[in-house]
Amino acid sequence: MRVSEIEWSTAEKKVAQAAFEKAYKREIDALIEDVRAKASAIAGLDDVWRLHDFLSAKRHEIDGKYDYRYSVLIFVFAGLVKEGWLQLDELEGLDHGKLTKIAALARM
Amino acid sequence: MRVSEIEWSTAEKKVAQAAFEKAYKREIDALIEDVRAKASAIAGLDDVWRLHDFLSAKRHEIDGKYDYRYSVLIFVFAGLVKEGWLQLDELEGLDHGKLTKIAALARM
Repeated sequence: MRVSEIEWSTAEKKVAQAAFEKAYKREIDALIEDVRAKASAIAGLDDVWRLHDFLSAKRHEIDGKYDYRYSVLIFVFAGLVKEGWLQLDELEGLDHGKLTKIAALARM
Repeated sequence: MRVSEIEWSTAEKKVAQAAFEKAYKREIDALIEDVRAKASAIAGLDDVWRLHDFLSAKRHEIDGKYDYRYSVLIFVFAGLVKEGWLQLDELEGLDHGKLTKIAALARM
């Protein structure tokens, strides 16, 4: 069975939704902190444009990353675990096969 | 004579350079203040992307505006006077014809 065809039970969808939102909130909160810190350290125009470049990259990255479609969610979670926005144990409640896949992909 | 063919004396170039740098510094300093204020007021992700949009627009605007070519300088100064980054009397030392053109364009 391909990863994109994996079935999600109602209970699993609840776990997935909560984990997704948790990771998103963490990353956004960290981004806001980061932008505030970068902005308060601005000394010249170069720093302003560096902040602009940083925001351009982040916007692109976050727009692409938080994709809540069940066909790609295994990969999304693996990426979030790899980057530290989510812990594997926060996905408890997903079936063993999914957790194994996510853990394996996160180590890649 | 077309505006783009106007001659600039050495003394006028000095006045022009100083005025150009003064306006640039003022606008950049104001931009930095503005970015710091906007960043410290960020409450959520929407504000982050609004700051990004603001910086995208400002970068485009400033890149285009500060064009120190003598063929376009009359227009550049008129724009800076119109926007308040430069006072007409800070251009004293330019010949009467140039000052009249700048003042007229700034009122348009």
